[in-house]
Amino acid sequence: MSKKRKVAVLGATGTVGQRFIQLLDNHPWFEVTALTGSERTIGGKFKDGCRWVIPGDMPEWAGEMIVQETAPNLDADIVFSALHSSIAKEVEPVLAKAGYNVFSNASSYRMTEDVPLLIPEVNADHAHLVTHQRKVRGWDGCIVTNCNCTSTGFTVVLKPLHEAFGLKNIIATSMQAISGAGYPGLPALDYVDNIVPFIGGEEAKLGIEPPKMLGELVDNKIVPVEFNVSAHCNRVPVTDGHTVCVSIQFEKSPTPAEVIEVLKNYRGHEVVRGLPISPDTVIEVRSEDDRPQPRRDRDAGNGMTTVVGRVREDEVFDIKMVIMSHNTFKGAAGGSMQNAELLVEMGLA
Amino acid sequence: MSKKRKVAVLGATGTVGQRFIQLLDNHPWFEVTALTGSERTIGGKFKDGCRWVIPGDMPEWAGEMIVQETAPNLDADIVFSALHSSIAKEVEPVLAKAGYNVFSNASSYRMTEDVPLLIPEVNADHAHLVTHQRKVRGWDGCIVTNCNCTSTGFTVVLKPLHEAFGLKNIIATSMQAISGAGYPGLPALDYVDNIVPFIGGEEAKLGIEPPKMLGELVDNKIVPVEFNVSAHCNRVPVTDGHTVCVSIQFEKSPTPAEVIEVLKNYRGHEVVRGLPISPDTVIEVRSEDDRPQPRRDRDAGNGMTTVVGRVREDEVFDIKMVIMSHNTFKGAAGGSMQNAELLVEMGLA
Amino acid sequence: MSKKRKVAVLGATGTVGQRFIQLLDNHPWFEVTALTGSERTIGGKFKDGCRWVIPGDMPEWAGEMIVQETAPNLDADIVFSALHSSIAKEVEPVLAKAGYNVFSNASSYRMTEDVPLLIPEVNADHAHLVTHQRKVRGWDGCIVTNCNCTSTGFTVVLKPLHEAFGLKNIIATSMQAISGAGYPGLPALDYVDNIVPFIGGEEAKLGIEPPKMLGELVDNKIVPVEFNVSAHCNRVPVTDGHTVCVSIQFEKSPTPAEVIEVLKNYRGHEVVRGLPISPDTVIEVRSEDDRPQPRRDRDAGNGMTTVVGRVREDEVFDIKMVIMSHNTFKGAAGGSMQNAELLVEMGLA
Amino acid sequence: MSKKRKVAVLGATGTVGQRFIQLLDNHPWFEVTALTGSERTIGGKFKDGCRWVIPGDMPEWAGEMIVQETAPNLDADIVFSALHSSIAKEVEPVLAKAGYNVFSNASSYRMTEDVPLLIPEVNADHAHLVTHQRKVRGWDGCIVTNCNCTSTGFTVVLKPLHEAFGLKNIIATSMQAISGAGYPGLPALDYVDNIVPFIGGEEAKLGIEPPKMLGELVDNKIVPVEFNVSAHCNRVPVTDGHTVCVSIQFEKSPTPAEVIEVLKNYRGHEVVRGLPISPDTVIEVRSEDDRPQPRRDRDAGNGMTTVVGRVREDEVFDIKMVIMSHNTFKGAAGGSMQNAELLVEMGLA
Repeated sequence: MSKKRKVAVLGATGTVGQRFIQLLDNHPWFEVTALTGSERTIGGKFKDGCRWVIPGDMPEWAGEMIVQETAPNLDADIVFSALHSSIAKEVEPVLAKAGYNVFSNASSYRMTEDVPLLIPEVNADHAHLVTHQRKVRGWDGCIVTNCNCTSTGFTVVLKPLHEAFGLKNIIATSMQAISGAGYPGLPALDYVDNIVPFIGGEEAKLGIEPPKMLGELVDNKIVPVEFNVSAHCNRVPVTDGHTVCVSIQFEKSPTPAEVIEVLKNYRGHEVVRGLPISPDTVIEVRSEDDRPQPRRDRDAGNGMTTVVGRVREDEVFDIKMVIMSHNTFKGAAGGSMQNAELLVEMGLA
Repeated sequence: MSKKRKVAVLGATGTVGQRFIQLLDNHPWFEVTALTGSERTIGGKFKDGCRWVIPGDMPEWAGEMIVQETAPNLDADIVFSALHSSIAKEVEPVLAKAGYNVFSNASSYRMTEDVPLLIPEVNADHAHLVTHQRKVRGWDGCIVTNCNCTSTGFTVVLKPLHEAFGLKNIIATSMQAISGAGYPGLPALDYVDNIVPFIGGEEAKLGIEPPKMLGELVDNKIVPVEFNVSAHCNRVPVTDGHTVCVSIQFEKSPTPAEVIEVLKNYRGHEVVRGLPISPDTVIEVRSEDDRPQPRRDRDAGNGMTTVVGRVREDEVFDIKMVIMSHNTFKGAAGGSMQNAELLVEMGLA
Repeated sequence: MSKKRKVAVLGATGTVGQRFIQLLDNHPWFEVTALTGSERTIGGKFKDGCRWVIPGDMPEWAGEMIVQETAPNLDADIVFSALHSSIAKEVEPVLAKAGYNVFSNASSYRMTEDVPLLIPEVNADHAHLVTHQRKVRGWDGCIVTNCNCTSTGFTVVLKPLHEAFGLKNIIATSMQAISGAGYPGLPALDYVDNIVPFIGGEEAKLGIEPPKMLGELVDNKIVPVEFNVSAHCNRVPVTDGHTVCVSIQFEKSPTPAEVIEVLKNYRGHEVVRGLPISPDTVIEVRSEDDRPQPRRDRDAGNGMTTVVGRVREDEVFDIKMVIMSHNTFKGAAGGSMQNAELLVEMGLA
Repeated sequence: MSKKRKVAVLGATGTVGQRFIQLLDNHPWFEVTALTGSERTIGGKFKDGCRWVIPGDMPEWAGEMIVQETAPNLDADIVFSALHSSIAKEVEPVLAKAGYNVFSNASSYRMTEDVPLLIPEVNADHAHLVTHQRKVRGWDGCIVTNCNCTSTGFTVVLKPLHEAFGLKNIIATSMQAISGAGYPGLPALDYVDNIVPFIGGEEAKLGIEPPKMLGELVDNKIVPVEFNVSAHCNRVPVTDGHTVCVSIQFEKSPTPAEVIEVLKNYRGHEVVRGLPISPDTVIEVRSEDDRPQPRRDRDAGNGMTTVVGRVREDEVFDIKMVIMSHNTFKGAAGGSMQNAELLVEMGLA
């Protein structure tokens, strides 16, 4: 790869946009050539329009770039979309049609039939759906999506377990980080000495996104796997890192030891291992009683490793455990980045 | 009741002991005549031995009392035990034998066959077990226990639901307050930007205590109800108020509306309604999307009301909902207090 | 007082408005006859327009009231203003002119020459300024303000100290609660594992409001006391209760014991003592090393008592100490309420 | 430097010990050859005796090491002491006498006349005091200390300001992180919806340590600089990063712009710049209104840079500002590490 690919970040001033910029700083394959933002920021320097709120400093090169409109005249061929769903819905197809390969963190097209919903380790092969997408839509570019931040670690863990033991029923309770709502996002008064047992629209996503990602690509269609998920989604005073307690009923009842072995051995699709952002360990299984914990474990694999603990027998189903995953790295910007690296590596973008 | 009953608080310097003292301040039926504490504090004024850490001031009368040893020479006939389980195990039977009516918040005798495990609204009739207990043990006094703080609200809600629809399987995930571990209790470093997905011994209690409390007293024995509970217990940065997300499978599948009606109409045993500490509403069902929340709802009924919300269909079982209960009032000192009031009212203490 | 006075709450749907309603529930002198709100809520029931976020339930009578426009056609003669400063600036004079006695929590007119800025214990006599205000402006009603929530406890403490020892220089560092910014107010991401060393406009207020309140009313003018304040204002993850660390240089150097005695003996203006909302203790001086603390001390005197601790020698000035005051009771709605009670008691409203 | 120096970590199982191990993982100059721990852990593997609580994993090599007693038979010549002060007081001189170069984070010998109290950028030249120390005590080794974690950033900032403008009086209010108290350390119940305005012994240290460090080494004695510090020390719910608000009176009154320029240009002693752990920037001056903030700024320079903001005029003294420094890196283990690197570089260890 003698020359870097030109990439743009759409909606770069928000927190997911900021994470994209952070991940793209010194990226071996990509070079940022355009940043887009809202009306208010267009035409000005990025550093004047962006209130940088994630830890670490804004890269100097980003600060000096001029914010552009989100329109099909960007000097790039790969674009990362950190747009709000409502805007993404309108503009992403326009860009894809104009030849841009859009890697979107928005929810707008996740469940669309010809749009891949990717976690590279889990379903890298679904990436081939973009060829069909381009053909039926007459697009030069494409749209590729990553899943909801809570579905991410959850699905990474379900994948090898489904292959080994067959999923039937899952009851999952999440304790999600506040960064999932962006910035300014949630009111501080709700998260001091308090938790909120509700996140709008979130519970349904856990029931539909994982079955699609675990499904099989047959004749240009993804046939979802069948299993039931009942989710309870809660928000807790944690900055980053979503924790999910799951009880699972399988086709074949495994022991905790069998589950642990399957998780430890899981390496995901081979093509994924060499990508710049891929972690050494896809799933880390901790043996302590009281792990994973978001603050202590979220940075495993630079926020790209899913951390599991407390794998034990379930009194009602077969197995219960705790899953933790970094929601703004693996679950958002890092996931999109890995998707883009995957399609480049596969020659699909 | 022309004259107040004399009561003692055992282990009065800890946080549960402090709550007992707070609840006994101006109690219409009870008058504190003795406080006991550890070696270090015996013989000194309570205010010199106790670091008061709950909100509100130490009552002046308590501060001036001399801390005594926990031994059967206390000038009282009712005693509230806020002792650690290991100490409670030894000393409570000694006191009961010596004629004291012991209302214990410790876990030591909860599952003992002839010891009632009471939540007055739920199983006031189990109180009669003390007559049998006195007889078989040759005691003048007795031991009465209240359940684990997480079992409390959970069991209050299960009671009317079991009667109406029959419980089969429950998967429950708790997000518990740090006050449950006393003071100094848990390390602050574990609860800033973090949660801990583990509480030693807690998950098993949710499987055995509720079946006993929902059981029937037949021939001086409690026949537990049969249903399965799988629990995930988590600790979150909340001072007071345990939240539990539950998914329930019933014998007869009710609709959410039927469940809500049963919960709203639940009033518990009639004898309980007139007790000084009993709340007007046993179960409050909130209709907002995002309630109950610990900080905003824990003080319902002065911390004695169980608050429920988000009653909805479950994709795997029948019904799911969120239950919240104040862990140091209803779930600890307030529960013991209500037990004592109950036995006095029933003429059993 | 045979009949209750009719009062309205302006901007009733916000958090300060909610506190006003809570304080007016069962008020012995006042009866709420009107609630006003923003465009969006006018004409609907209060319970449909208000997202109740403070602990405790919305009083039923309030929920059923119809929200009105903030205009001079309200059926009341006393109005409590929880309006944003920009709106308060326009509408409060209109109401005062129309005959309403406006008790405002907004900052718009605090420093206006003929508007009293009151903390009843401190400067009840300044209330007489409304007579002059009515005369020069030709108003039937009036505007009375309470000070910034951080100035409140600070000024209550400075008053007796100034009288006894003469203030010269003060360096004050606040650690303020997030409720001071209303709801939704501040971003949760800023207050998990973090503090923010800045509150816009706040530091200047600590330099100008206390001198006015400690000033003397001479010939219909308030002559401010002269002393210098340098303030550092910080926001910390606390729901309610502002803490201020102060170092003070006096005209006459007192000892810590002398300061403590003066604070303990301070009772404020006599007329204030009988008001319904006035606390028994104006200033509580705690002797523990580590108090006051916001969560444990903010409810002293139902949030109307100022709590002081750690009075000790200062290595640079004379005395240093810690001051804590409830920012949404004494520092906002409770303060306005006390002002209204004061003017009614004095026959000025 | 062809061969790495052998180093030991004393009290390695605590949080400061863990930070030392983290910093020594792949250190270019040092190689860990011994770890010591308490009675309970001696003779076992480090991973069995240490509950690793800092973010990131325990290095594998450390986990496999056998914990030793803290005694003068360690295979190392440099030792890092993370011992409690009471133990450090006894054992550090024994080790120094036996030839070990002890770099201590304990407070026991900080104010001892012949013991250097070092912040390399500030007073690298004080390191020469070890020659005198060895001579007068007849030691082969030595004791070198780093200052209290709150003094650190504070002193780094005072150094160039004193040289440029002359310090006279300082009033400082800290908001300190809970990691400063180790693990398990402080009770969680004190830090949810709360702050604590007291840290035992801390305020005095801010008055005596900085004058020693800013002093001059004359005839084997350090002549402290004379200026007064009044400190208010508070603990807030932040994991890492101490924030200090300071008001300073100088000999020559500088403008904020002059202060900013001096801070920005400050580079410290030249010998320090090439040390492995030294940051590129000694003091970072931020221009935003609301910075520094602990969570967002503590990792500047890998936790070794002092971050300053809000430099402005003071209404009572000359200048006020906010200083933030990472208390477990620069303020503890990182500071000790830098001291060791300094003495090695200077040929003194």
